[in-house]
Amino acid sequence: MPDFHIQPLNQSLAAAIQHKIDTKTKPLGALGQLEQLARQVALVQQTLTPALQHPHMLVFAADHGIAQEGVSKYPQEVTYQMVLNFLSGGAAINVFSRQQGIALRIVDAGVKGSFTEFPAVVDQKIAEGTCSFLREPAMSSAQCEQALAAGARLAQEVAATGCNVLGFGEMGIGNTSAATMLMHRLTGLPLEACLGRGTGLDDDQLAHKAAVLTAAAATHATVSAPLDVLATFGGFEIAQMTGAMLAAAEAGMLLLIDGFIATAALLVAVKLHPAVLEYCVFGHQSEETGHRLLLGHLNARPLLSLGLRLGEGTGCALAYPLLQAAVNFLNEVASFESAGVSQAEPQPASAV
Amino acid sequence: MPDFHIQPLNQSLAAAIQHKIDTKTKPLGALGQLEQLARQVALVQQTLTPALQHPHMLVFAADHGIAQEGVSKYPQEVTYQMVLNFLSGGAAINVFSRQQGIALRIVDAGVKGSFTEFPAVVDQKIAEGTCSFLREPAMSSAQCEQALAAGARLAQEVAATGCNVLGFGEMGIGNTSAATMLMHRLTGLPLEACLGRGTGLDDDQLAHKAAVLTAAAATHATVSAPLDVLATFGGFEIAQMTGAMLAAAEAGMLLLIDGFIATAALLVAVKLHPAVLEYCVFGHQSEETGHRLLLGHLNARPLLSLGLRLGEGTGCALAYPLLQAAVNFLNEVASFESAGVSQAEPQPASAV
Repeated sequence: MPDFHIQPLNQSLAAAIQHKIDTKTKPLGALGQLEQLARQVALVQQTLTPALQHPHMLVFAADHGIAQEGVSKYPQEVTYQMVLNFLSGGAAINVFSRQQGIALRIVDAGVKGSFTEFPAVVDQKIAEGTCSFLREPAMSSAQCEQALAAGARLAQEVAATGCNVLGFGEMGIGNTSAATMLMHRLTGLPLEACLGRGTGLDDDQLAHKAAVLTAAAATHATVSAPLDVLATFGGFEIAQMTGAMLAAAEAGMLLLIDGFIATAALLVAVKLHPAVLEYCVFGHQSEETGHRLLLGHLNARPLLSLGLRLGEGTGCALAYPLLQAAVNFLNEVASFESAGVSQAEPQPASAV
Repeated sequence: MPDFHIQPLNQSLAAAIQHKIDTKTKPLGALGQLEQLARQVALVQQTLTPALQHPHMLVFAADHGIAQEGVSKYPQEVTYQMVLNFLSGGAAINVFSRQQGIALRIVDAGVKGSFTEFPAVVDQKIAEGTCSFLREPAMSSAQCEQALAAGARLAQEVAATGCNVLGFGEMGIGNTSAATMLMHRLTGLPLEACLGRGTGLDDDQLAHKAAVLTAAAATHATVSAPLDVLATFGGFEIAQMTGAMLAAAEAGMLLLIDGFIATAALLVAVKLHPAVLEYCVFGHQSEETGHRLLLGHLNARPLLSLGLRLGEGTGCALAYPLLQAAVNFLNEVASFESAGVSQAEPQPASAV
């Protein structure tokens, strides 16, 4: 796999950043999680005056062999159709990215069908979908390496445009099944804790999905190394996200992580290079059952919890204004001294 | 008091709105709380194509006699100083309002000190702070009426500019004590459940605040009618907010509710005219202890929960992009039909 060098954040500015935050005209800590976010952005960018530049969202799409086993409510062609919807600007991620001024790029990581007529698609197709991991590994080791490298190259390209904040979204019918297996195998949590209704399975359909994934876990019972787990159960969009996340952290960008699938891709990245986590901002906690546990495993605190379960990067696009607010807070809110506002003082207790 | 006519939302468009939401290219319900928000905005505006126009934030400031009893960590002059900070654009609410394109107006509802040199301040001063409700009612009934009417007039003025979404923030050293008493008396919840650390009291200071408020509750043990409770324990900024909220709902605006103090002002409004609640969007759940319970009492689900405890309207300004996203979702996301995307179908279960 590509060689990544991801530095743990240099903490030498930490005290100066905290001092700047604590002398702002507000009670100590009164902006809660936004203050932590301001601290993180300043540390990632190694400056007391951070700035978000040329935000981008990469939406990786691919098909999954496991979709043939009836694990999704939607037919597989929806992956292709939704890519067309992204291209025509009609999907939720288009709407939210436009609203926030986030540049959106759609990546064919391995969708069934051709986009040769659509030059706006970033063509990184590894194959026309993965194999069904119920029967065989989803992809070969070579394909997995190729996907990681393709994702990494794209993140490097985006970084070269001056972008320093990168969101990650995905589309792929069947990919909650892939993410569930990655989570189960890489966290050690029981399969049933990692399993959810995806696009909206009913109880019978969920039981079927559980049976398929239980059988798949047995088929590949001994696979445990992160890259082997990724190749066995992953998708091309997931592997490309993993590679892109590692390269983005290496480039010192902020990473905006979306929901269950994107977090599963990050999980693989974290198992390879734990320091990647320090560059991540978690947009939201998905309604998909496993996501809360997966965030907990990563010790991650999401910004939003709105019951979303859509993917596409929607959760991180919706959280972007909070990241911008944290930066603006650090740069623009006056200090007690500059504003001539009195600080907290011990109050004389009145007689009651 | 002014006579308000607040209509419960006309539900005749409800089915058409839900149909529009459910035929968007996403799994049913996959945008969670954002879909509920889209529904609410469409109902408030009585249209399938809502729009947010000329958003405004009103920050009401006033001083509280109870601050003299040592219930806050900050000296009372901070109210005046923070108004100057608002005027010079250096407070958190300035920064967040600028970021979101929300017009900000600062209202002197009853601050100690003169703003005659500052014409940008909306002068609605009832008096130079309230009386200490430890000893006597915070204000007279006449002052309370006057404050409600002044708030209402201002909201009507803002509505006349074409604004259809109005946020409510406040500044007033000591006002968590006032809000605590309003909540305690109007919800019937025990005082200790309504009590919190405000701007950051330590354990001893919190115990002192509890003793002051317990004594005040005993002093005014029989006060129970909403307007009497407001006059006895409220502040001029709170009463003006209550009036402004009622007038805004009467004008058919969306109301963006901030944290503990703004929600306490709304509580008074709801006790007078329950239908006002249908116009409210709750920006966030504050870190201030009572706020979660107060939101629960109102059956309100806040958009954000970031551990904020600042007031000023910051929580609702930060939530504004989510409201905009809900509107954009309803107007801009393509339908399955228009995008040519297949809908969910019963999947043939594969043999496992």
